[in-house]
Amino acid sequence: MNGSSTGKALVLTCFGESHGKIIGAVIDGCPAGLPISTEDIQAEVDKRRPGLASVSTPRKEEDRVEILSGVFKGYTTGAPICMLIKNVDTKSEDYEIVEDKPRPGHADYTAYVKYGGFSDYKGGGRFSGRITAGYVMAGAVAKKLLALLNIEVLAHTVQISKVKVSRKVTYDEIRTNVYKNSVRCSEPETAALMEKTILKVAKEGDSLGGIVEAIALNVPAGLGEPVFDSLDSEIAKIMFNIPAVKGVEFGAGFRAASLKGSENNDQYTVKNGKVVTLTNNAGGVLGGISTGMPIIVNVALKPTSSISKRQKTVDLAEMKETEIELSGRHDPCVVPRAVTVVEACLAFVLADHALRSGKISRVIRK
Amino acid sequence: MNGSSTGKALVLTCFGESHGKIIGAVIDGCPAGLPISTEDIQAEVDKRRPGLASVSTPRKEEDRVEILSGVFKGYTTGAPICMLIKNVDTKSEDYEIVEDKPRPGHADYTAYVKYGGFSDYKGGGRFSGRITAGYVMAGAVAKKLLALLNIEVLAHTVQISKVKVSRKVTYDEIRTNVYKNSVRCSEPETAALMEKTILKVAKEGDSLGGIVEAIALNVPAGLGEPVFDSLDSEIAKIMFNIPAVKGVEFGAGFRAASLKGSENNDQYTVKNGKVVTLTNNAGGVLGGISTGMPIIVNVALKPTSSISKRQKTVDLAEMKETEIELSGRHDPCVVPRAVTVVEACLAFVLADHALRSGKISRVIRK
Amino acid sequence: MNGSSTGKALVLTCFGESHGKIIGAVIDGCPAGLPISTEDIQAEVDKRRPGLASVSTPRKEEDRVEILSGVFKGYTTGAPICMLIKNVDTKSEDYEIVEDKPRPGHADYTAYVKYGGFSDYKGGGRFSGRITAGYVMAGAVAKKLLALLNIEVLAHTVQISKVKVSRKVTYDEIRTNVYKNSVRCSEPETAALMEKTILKVAKEGDSLGGIVEAIALNVPAGLGEPVFDSLDSEIAKIMFNIPAVKGVEFGAGFRAASLKGSENNDQYTVKNGKVVTLTNNAGGVLGGISTGMPIIVNVALKPTSSISKRQKTVDLAEMKETEIELSGRHDPCVVPRAVTVVEACLAFVLADHALRSGKISRVIRK
Amino acid sequence: MNGSSTGKALVLTCFGESHGKIIGAVIDGCPAGLPISTEDIQAEVDKRRPGLASVSTPRKEEDRVEILSGVFKGYTTGAPICMLIKNVDTKSEDYEIVEDKPRPGHADYTAYVKYGGFSDYKGGGRFSGRITAGYVMAGAVAKKLLALLNIEVLAHTVQISKVKVSRKVTYDEIRTNVYKNSVRCSEPETAALMEKTILKVAKEGDSLGGIVEAIALNVPAGLGEPVFDSLDSEIAKIMFNIPAVKGVEFGAGFRAASLKGSENNDQYTVKNGKVVTLTNNAGGVLGGISTGMPIIVNVALKPTSSISKRQKTVDLAEMKETEIELSGRHDPCVVPRAVTVVEACLAFVLADHALRSGKISRVIRK
Repeated sequence: MNGSSTGKALVLTCFGESHGKIIGAVIDGCPAGLPISTEDIQAEVDKRRPGLASVSTPRKEEDRVEILSGVFKGYTTGAPICMLIKNVDTKSEDYEIVEDKPRPGHADYTAYVKYGGFSDYKGGGRFSGRITAGYVMAGAVAKKLLALLNIEVLAHTVQISKVKVSRKVTYDEIRTNVYKNSVRCSEPETAALMEKTILKVAKEGDSLGGIVEAIALNVPAGLGEPVFDSLDSEIAKIMFNIPAVKGVEFGAGFRAASLKGSENNDQYTVKNGKVVTLTNNAGGVLGGISTGMPIIVNVALKPTSSISKRQKTVDLAEMKETEIELSGRHDPCVVPRAVTVVEACLAFVLADHALRSGKISRVIRK
Repeated sequence: MNGSSTGKALVLTCFGESHGKIIGAVIDGCPAGLPISTEDIQAEVDKRRPGLASVSTPRKEEDRVEILSGVFKGYTTGAPICMLIKNVDTKSEDYEIVEDKPRPGHADYTAYVKYGGFSDYKGGGRFSGRITAGYVMAGAVAKKLLALLNIEVLAHTVQISKVKVSRKVTYDEIRTNVYKNSVRCSEPETAALMEKTILKVAKEGDSLGGIVEAIALNVPAGLGEPVFDSLDSEIAKIMFNIPAVKGVEFGAGFRAASLKGSENNDQYTVKNGKVVTLTNNAGGVLGGISTGMPIIVNVALKPTSSISKRQKTVDLAEMKETEIELSGRHDPCVVPRAVTVVEACLAFVLADHALRSGKISRVIRK
Repeated sequence: MNGSSTGKALVLTCFGESHGKIIGAVIDGCPAGLPISTEDIQAEVDKRRPGLASVSTPRKEEDRVEILSGVFKGYTTGAPICMLIKNVDTKSEDYEIVEDKPRPGHADYTAYVKYGGFSDYKGGGRFSGRITAGYVMAGAVAKKLLALLNIEVLAHTVQISKVKVSRKVTYDEIRTNVYKNSVRCSEPETAALMEKTILKVAKEGDSLGGIVEAIALNVPAGLGEPVFDSLDSEIAKIMFNIPAVKGVEFGAGFRAASLKGSENNDQYTVKNGKVVTLTNNAGGVLGGISTGMPIIVNVALKPTSSISKRQKTVDLAEMKETEIELSGRHDPCVVPRAVTVVEACLAFVLADHALRSGKISRVIRK
Repeated sequence: MNGSSTGKALVLTCFGESHGKIIGAVIDGCPAGLPISTEDIQAEVDKRRPGLASVSTPRKEEDRVEILSGVFKGYTTGAPICMLIKNVDTKSEDYEIVEDKPRPGHADYTAYVKYGGFSDYKGGGRFSGRITAGYVMAGAVAKKLLALLNIEVLAHTVQISKVKVSRKVTYDEIRTNVYKNSVRCSEPETAALMEKTILKVAKEGDSLGGIVEAIALNVPAGLGEPVFDSLDSEIAKIMFNIPAVKGVEFGAGFRAASLKGSENNDQYTVKNGKVVTLTNNAGGVLGGISTGMPIIVNVALKPTSSISKRQKTVDLAEMKETEIELSGRHDPCVVPRAVTVVEACLAFVLADHALRSGKISRVIRK
């Protein structure tokens, strides 16, 4: 089978490997007439670029985006949009060890089994976090589509290890603060503590996980489908496509399991002639369809698998126990960079559903 | 668009409404030669049947399964298998109130907006938990396929409101105890407490949520795909198709966000000539592909939306605030019945991936 | 894999066997608010019903349509529409001979190989022309959708064996004459000759093929997609789903191979403020997209495979040559009944594309 | 919607425009372990390259294939394979006239309507025959997969205008002769006549069409599906994706409409312990499934739309009649180059179905 494409009205196909020639994405189904430039895509890709901060991998990639098709005279044509990033700074020799000794927590072993040893293991190959650069390119196009409906997508780090944001921040705080610190946190003082925590653990050769919250504002009620294409299902699905994600919840999420119905139900009222709810424990989705309230999704990421501590593994060629010590260059915490990816993924699913519903037309009139 | 079908090699199409004529499921792609009988399907459907216990809805449905196609002389033919359950005990008059006054926490409002008032609102129509009977029929077929690979799927209630199982139970305890109590809990003493908790809240006209854990044993390493069709993505997706689900996590899940890499990484060793991990924080999935360890997924369900307490809502015809008090028959806690559904959904995704991978062949030889 | 579903915005899933319990169809993606009744579907199904005329099979099926889901208070709800026809008059004993001795020209042998002998061979099972009753039910819904855009779909027999319509008939002749004769021909005198030809060959225990022309009027320019979902590709695809179809062509079709570009190109002009072409050799499709001119498609059907003449075959159990003489009840010519099916299939693809394009909205306002 | 992807187990996504930067193809689902090199792909692409012969367009494209992903150390990895060809020799200024004046027989007008004037019209953009270079790259991979099953795919020109091959040629004649002449005909003397005919018409500024026959040998019985994914349906669908195709038929095809059942039925016999048919009017497909006999498909192509003769068209900006005279560089007959494309398309569908059926495994063991 396969599985490198997702979406129905807006279809994203991703390809490329961490240490191969390129990371690529093709978006099919984008309406004609959307003004789009390389800069639009580049701006989003830059937000997740490695090597920016002391907490991130020292790998230096310029990540220059190139649009190869589907855009003509500055506007989308309705044809598939192919976008590429060339891989430049690859130190593949660091990874030769991986061929036979799977790194704990990585996909090395599962890839080895599934692909019979033919998988490109360098830098994690097809399983590297680097493939999410393709999601971000797609998210950049999706955001431009969502802007037509005035939908805004935000994301921020709400937890790194045991350090959590201290309170509910405002949307403006998210807009203002997130890209001002290296951990993508909306609360400056917490951001400082998160950075410190990461640096400390990084020095130990260890890593940390965390939680990203993503929010979509101004989503009209009625997006999504009941049953198998439900909005929350498809958002959850794409979030689990991000390497390291281990949990997804909407609104009150796991906490809802402990509430009573009378506490959890979001009661209705009318505000400015519009139906709204007094609370938003649903996270903006009921029955798989948007309620008109903000979509709120929490995404839990495990600590980076690549650590420099010595770990037990097996030699697959000889089927015996051994140990592994990784050098290579790794993020001690992928959460900050995942913020941009989570944001892009949420944007993509919403744009796909906006197109399915007919709320964005097939040709954008100037 | 649409969204009533799921799966790639094994495709499930669901249809029917809570108070319509039937609940139906068509499975396409089932290999030929699988021995299957109405009783096989009925046994699974009986496990989620309403009206069994004091904690569940008093609606009495016999839920007689009928196989209409795809089975010939006791074996599947390779053609699509259509299975139906007739709806019998429907008290639709209870629901007329819902037409204009959406119930908090339900899909009434989102369905109203999406379908312009044409949606069948009786008993929740297309959005009722009753549609999961279709998932269970599909799960019954999936389980027969998985049995060919010796894969076993288990599920049990691990939390109702704040009552949790006290310890890690064994697989045998799950096998033995779950269907012996009305709350589908594997720990008898905790089950008793859960029942008591539900009955107390039910008397108040209120409802409770909880958490279901599902486990798949003997899943061979190598099932799943990287990127968009990853095993965890597709399991998460189908879980969010179950009404009331608000969170899904694998292995350590949200807890992994607080762990260090050195704590969370599952180190490898060799056991009986097989690669295994010393821990299973991954929940059996790395890079979207099964590791060979048990698949472990937790599913959080919100408290039942239908409560008899008075709640604020709006009159959609007149766009003004009003209140609603529901009669009708409802589960004060859907978690126990969701156990069977979660189990079926996990089985379905695994069977689909086993077929995609070629581990189950297109014709089952006798 | 599978293959019992087709369409993207409008998805049709078909199931059931010739001599099983039912023939069924589920349509997913139909907009809410379309008024629809059992009678609407029945009227189309009646047009293809067997046993009507002396030229057709003597099998007597009432073919009573039942709508099981997706329609509420006379309107579609947006949920999947399940429609069933029960099989009543099945003489399965006629077919026991087929189990080991594949009938020449039938799918008995290919089904046997593919499904390892588990296929339901009675009456052709899943491969019978009877499954097209499902297409006709779907076509009935599609026609109601197309009527919203004023699109009309017509079909008629233009050739039976060597008897062809003598001239280009008008659309009104098709509308008026087709269902007045048993061969669905638009030219009464030719119809009489076709009937005579069929009866003569039927008496010899032999069978005949022919050609059906289908036409869609008022199709707006711009329906379809370039490349893989092109309108002509998808129309051709569904036509080859009809058993016995061996060729499909658009407009000038195979004849275009002998023309010069200057003869075949349809030159443009303006008529009543609309761009039209002076000829329609394209059959209404250029680059996979409708031109606004009538869609014209010819479908060639082979003679019915089931003949009562003695034929060579093999005994699959013993792998040796043998002969077969069929009794059973068969159409000596399936072309007349295929007219209704071809019409339904063309309607289905057009409705699917009209929905994809956004020309039909997701909710039909009264 | 969209439509730039096709296939189920093997998924092809095509992108790029005639005068854009590239023509690209991504194949997802190719098993791991298939040895593949740029040369393998290049060899097939060279077969359809323009500018080779006096009968073809004078546009000079080197068409250098580059593999960007999915291949590692000479073998496929199981990850998607991205292949690109850069466009070099584009004379776009020739096409500015087309923006407002649609060329008769081309997709200019339908693209204009569908994409609201945003379509890339240069060189036909997304609608150019040049996009079939992507199909050929995919076909090259497909052929390597089919070789694992010993399946061979052949294609040859059997008719140009009114010049037809004089007799049924042998497979060896096709293998030997087709790429020895510029018209891809298997009969040398007919080839010469075809060339002469094309050159004569080219001088008049006119164009010609023709028919390509494609044959697949050693296809095992049992490939394909009943109903909507039938082998003939999917072959027909992909053939109509080739610009200029107006008709597709299998085996006796349209001629079958005039035959009796006793003439058209392919009777069975046993040969070398294998079930075969005495004739092959079915063209190797019954009930949508391969019979084990050669697959035979005829594809009719219309004469090239681009001719230099003066033609009527409309000025879309002013909505009034006008005329057009094309310069630009065009094939006076696309049939010869279509031979390679038809061959590639047939190979792709067969490889997809071989994968679906499990006849090719997910990992190719060395």
